Amino acid sequence: MEVSNRFIVIKDHIEEAPKESHFNLKTESLSLSVVSGSDDVIVRNLYISIDPYQINRMKSNSSSQKAINFAVPITPNQAIDGVAVGKVVACGSGKFEKDDVVVGLFTWAEYSLVKEASIINKLDNFEFPLTYRLGVLGFTGLSAYAGFFELCKPKKGEKVFVSAASGSVGCLAAQYAKLFGCYVVGSAGSQKKVEVLKDKLGLDDAFNYKEETDLKSALKRYFPEGIDIYFDNVGGDMLEAAVDNMNSFGRVAVCGVISEYTDAGKRAAPDMLNVVYKRLNIRGFLAADFLNIFADFVSHTSDLLRSGKLLNLEDLSYGVDNIPSSFIGLFNGDNIGKKIVKLAEDE
Amino acid sequence: MEVSNRFIVIKDHIEEAPKESHFNLKTESLSLSVVSGSDDVIVRNLYISIDPYQINRMKSNSSSQKAINFAVPITPNQAIDGVAVGKVVACGSGKFEKDDVVVGLFTWAEYSLVKEASIINKLDNFEFPLTYRLGVLGFTGLSAYAGFFELCKPKKGEKVFVSAASGSVGCLAAQYAKLFGCYVVGSAGSQKKVEVLKDKLGLDDAFNYKEETDLKSALKRYFPEGIDIYFDNVGGDMLEAAVDNMNSFGRVAVCGVISEYTDAGKRAAPDMLNVVYKRLNIRGFLAADFLNIFADFVSHTSDLLRSGKLLNLEDLSYGVDNIPSSFIGLFNGDNIGKKIVKLAEDE
Repeated sequence: MEVSNRFIVIKDHIEEAPKESHFNLKTESLSLSVVSGSDDVIVRNLYISIDPYQINRMKSNSSSQKAINFAVPITPNQAIDGVAVGKVVACGSGKFEKDDVVVGLFTWAEYSLVKEASIINKLDNFEFPLTYRLGVLGFTGLSAYAGFFELCKPKKGEKVFVSAASGSVGCLAAQYAKLFGCYVVGSAGSQKKVEVLKDKLGLDDAFNYKEETDLKSALKRYFPEGIDIYFDNVGGDMLEAAVDNMNSFGRVAVCGVISEYTDAGKRAAPDMLNVVYKRLNIRGFLAADFLNIFADFVSHTSDLLRSGKLLNLEDLSYGVDNIPSSFIGLFNGDNIGKKIVKLAEDE
Repeated sequence: MEVSNRFIVIKDHIEEAPKESHFNLKTESLSLSVVSGSDDVIVRNLYISIDPYQINRMKSNSSSQKAINFAVPITPNQAIDGVAVGKVVACGSGKFEKDDVVVGLFTWAEYSLVKEASIINKLDNFEFPLTYRLGVLGFTGLSAYAGFFELCKPKKGEKVFVSAASGSVGCLAAQYAKLFGCYVVGSAGSQKKVEVLKDKLGLDDAFNYKEETDLKSALKRYFPEGIDIYFDNVGGDMLEAAVDNMNSFGRVAVCGVISEYTDAGKRAAPDMLNVVYKRLNIRGFLAADFLNIFADFVSHTSDLLRSGKLLNLEDLSYGVDNIPSSFIGLFNGDNIGKKIVKLAEDE
């Protein structure tokens, strides 16, 4: 059996903020059968995770990308890989059965033909909605969990600032911090998001950074006693302002630098004199380095979800043709919580 | 008995690179006797440590200074405190005897009247020249030792870059790294210093940063396999270039930011995308936080000095009236090794 498979490509490398004209929706004819004994797996994608870091893979050249093997540059006009949940259609080796629900590195497409050697994991007895595996119980959640607990080594009562706190990772980092017993303030880019942070997530306070003319003063207002931990998702001016307001022995976990992803001119120039005198620790990290605590993370987070203490915010769009706009929206602050595109029904 | 005591003051706060006109040599009449039973100690200064960080205490206002109690701003027209070695002239409490050799926070002066409650330690059975207690076996050495071993957690064979490697801390950090079994390259500001680094200290390589038009390319040339550890004494452009050349999981120990002490415009804007993707750890520190390892540091370093493996570089000037020029010279790169002003003979 053959299907017409629709998938998304970039036309060329992208060096600026992404826009619709950078992407193409292509169609290919795909056979849904595989050679028996082969390593091929065909997956019908159900949910695709939409993540800002992919923009860095779309650039033509970057020393960052070259440094690490798992941020392989995306090739124009070829299928874009990304984390997704799908259902097995056919599997050459017999390792997976038809209709097995799997999570792995698939493509921005309706169907993905992948090699079994790729990272594919069967989702057995998953008690939560499948989308959770892409967000709160996936790498997004692990980023928040590892960044906050492993890098920041928080103490109860410490003052925590989270930027992009309504974003996929930020909203979880902020909640972990609050549940742990910290004083937590988040920043976001709209009044609606600020309300979500205060009313739904129960942060101690939140502010709209777009309404602040001086971020340094703003943070001083929200943290009169200074910041102990800064969970950084944005970089740029906000990082500078946070460093100015950090307490001695403060920790900055650099999870993302979204303000710099699409505009290299917006680099942060933190006051290094503060870094020395206040003995600050600024540390970048990737969730992939913390697979050793994945089981702990899932166990702890599942408990918090079951008890209703942790709120999972998701932002769903539908259909392969909406993948580009969903991705573009990340850089315009369109989403609240984890951005996911749904491609087909679970059943 | 009374003496005429000469001491150095700043005329006003200093916001730029220091120059002679910022300083005054003052004279006061000082009684060399103390009230019996009082907390007063009079010390005749022998050697004074000249350190770049003092410029930050001379500024009128700085959030950095306010953040920490041991970087108390220096008041214009009053005696400037600094670490020194001296000989006790008189002690009210009897805790110290006349002619005891002591190290402590004294003043940029011939004589210092201090309170016993200040940090004064008697130098008993000190087997090395007294100047060593201000440099290689004092806070200077501890900065190099703690910064390299405690913050950078080196592994043998790792690639280490030290900036201002002919400076007081840099020349020790570079030697610790070399003796530990790392590949070490240092930067300095003259051909003469580069020769010292290569020929006297035995670094694997060294370069004159003033002869490089592109620091990023220069570091790429000296570290074709990347930098694992950067011991940063300068900040600014060099920090940016180092971050670009760091390997994954690289560590940056920020010991000093001399390029930014006198010119706030020269701030480093490191590529935070590199910080995230390469999981870099950038950490500021002060030697004072590592008093818990002071004994280990002294023991280990004394062994290295006795065996001749560690070379102690000192740069001496003479007389209280030469303190300002010695201090100013730090910012012009005049010194090789630890800058000390000798005020009187040991005997």
